[in-house]
Amino acid sequence: MILVLTGGVGGAKLVLGLARRLEPGSLTVVVNTGDDFDHLGLRICPDLDTVMYTLAGLANPETGWGLSGDSWGFMEALQRLGGDDWFRLGDRDLATHVERTHRLRRGEALSAITAGFCASLDVTHTVVPMSDDPVRTMVRSSGRRIDFQDYLVRLRAEPVVEGFDYEGIQHARPYEGFLTALQDPQLRAIIVCNSNPFVSILPIVALPGIRERLSRRRAPLIAVSPIVGGAAVKGPLAKMLGELGRDASPVAIAEIYAGLLDGMVIDRTDDGLREAIAALDVQPFIAETIMTTEHEKIRLADEVLRAIGTLGGDYG
Amino acid sequence: MILVLTGGVGGAKLVLGLARRLEPGSLTVVVNTGDDFDHLGLRICPDLDTVMYTLAGLANPETGWGLSGDSWGFMEALQRLGGDDWFRLGDRDLATHVERTHRLRRGEALSAITAGFCASLDVTHTVVPMSDDPVRTMVRSSGRRIDFQDYLVRLRAEPVVEGFDYEGIQHARPYEGFLTALQDPQLRAIIVCNSNPFVSILPIVALPGIRERLSRRRAPLIAVSPIVGGAAVKGPLAKMLGELGRDASPVAIAEIYAGLLDGMVIDRTDDGLREAIAALDVQPFIAETIMTTEHEKIRLADEVLRAIGTLGGDYG
Repeated sequence: MILVLTGGVGGAKLVLGLARRLEPGSLTVVVNTGDDFDHLGLRICPDLDTVMYTLAGLANPETGWGLSGDSWGFMEALQRLGGDDWFRLGDRDLATHVERTHRLRRGEALSAITAGFCASLDVTHTVVPMSDDPVRTMVRSSGRRIDFQDYLVRLRAEPVVEGFDYEGIQHARPYEGFLTALQDPQLRAIIVCNSNPFVSILPIVALPGIRERLSRRRAPLIAVSPIVGGAAVKGPLAKMLGELGRDASPVAIAEIYAGLLDGMVIDRTDDGLREAIAALDVQPFIAETIMTTEHEKIRLADEVLRAIGTLGGDYG
Repeated sequence: MILVLTGGVGGAKLVLGLARRLEPGSLTVVVNTGDDFDHLGLRICPDLDTVMYTLAGLANPETGWGLSGDSWGFMEALQRLGGDDWFRLGDRDLATHVERTHRLRRGEALSAITAGFCASLDVTHTVVPMSDDPVRTMVRSSGRRIDFQDYLVRLRAEPVVEGFDYEGIQHARPYEGFLTALQDPQLRAIIVCNSNPFVSILPIVALPGIRERLSRRRAPLIAVSPIVGGAAVKGPLAKMLGELGRDASPVAIAEIYAGLLDGMVIDRTDDGLREAIAALDVQPFIAETIMTTEHEKIRLADEVLRAIGTLGGDYG
């Protein structure tokens, strides 16, 4: 059994590669819900949906979010009515948000709803929210606290980041299936995807008890660097690192994950950073980490699984 | 100024005819909200939307509900997720329901939301809900009470009707603009559209104080019969009348509106019922009341306005 921690777009690519290589049921994907938010009265879970749609083969490969070939009648009509249109929702995608919100209001847990959706969409691996309780990632900037989706989409990641708060995290219980997977004697490895540490991975790690459990892990933990050649593969990560006084480098990522990492897969471009990574007591692995085609996603998954084999010796 | 009381599909046709004939602003259309309901967590107002879409020139002429040329991506995706699909919502139509529900939850009144939507859709006449407070029309059948939309759509109007309850009606305040219009010295006439009395018109009349105000009216009240040649123009009205021990006849409609009617427009087919109508102290007017084309809607509007001219003498 392999446990994966991931955010949305970037991480979902690796998750797809892993899903293609591993037997159905052997992969548990724990997805960040810190950037979930309410929009037009609907509960939107961007990372969960991206992972779910990706594994269902329905994701839009161009945008990274939403459904491939979706239509935009709803958005057009909403604009005409003067509704909030800064966050784009496709017609088919909307069914996910409307039905999820409806079930949440009836008292169903996000995890149960997600399991139902995954079954309906023929997703054969286990996709779970990090928690059934709401957590809101807030960006601190110039004395303000900005809701993450507001920061990312509406404000186009322009405000200068001074830090992050995960609102509600102290009362959020990690999803039971996540805790079970962490304690599973069959757990072979924990993979941290090439997602943004601040807004995708650290909210998961910040859940009560998770950092401690990860520190006491009996299976290797390996991360894939989301920074390649001094830039973020996607999104505002490099900008955030700079604003927080760090280099846009896999070394900074390894430092951020200090105490949790056994190994880190870095891109061939960053081969020169092997020793700096190793100096942090993290075993470096080199691979092609840019994934566009499905072939590249599977190839990286293979490299990660091979690295786990190497690290496994310390645990077994 | 002319005040119109109406339900959805049938009445909206006459409303359109009147709107084409009267100056913008001179028509106030009070719409039944007794069949409003919550579906998938969204507030659906079928009659309000039908009237609004009809006046905006956006209504689907084939179904009588929804938007012309709408797409069905949402419904397809919802079905795949196992959502409730007995009530069909088009992609563009959905924007109305999502945005309305969102604004209602923020505390806006249904009347204000409707006014905003009408402005966005370039509806130049005034369309108002009968009340901002929720009223639910329930069908009594075999000792059960069935929500009207459930009865009409899901159960296809099959249960035998024993009566109707307008749940919440005793605490529902008539919309202020409705009361104002009733007291307006400029009020020239009140028109009751050819809608179903039980589920479209009587909920409006049953609002606290409305029957009394209508009885004390200083402008003539004229209805258009929704029964033509022994059948309902649309929907289960003839079946309902039969189950309630009444004939499917304009005379039964005049009896149901007893004490409120000054005149009634009946179809040429029912010319033989003139005297029976007159015997109820209701002045009969003959017209072609079946409306398919816009021309026919305007022609009937003209006949109704002419009848008002005749009745007007009693009021002056």
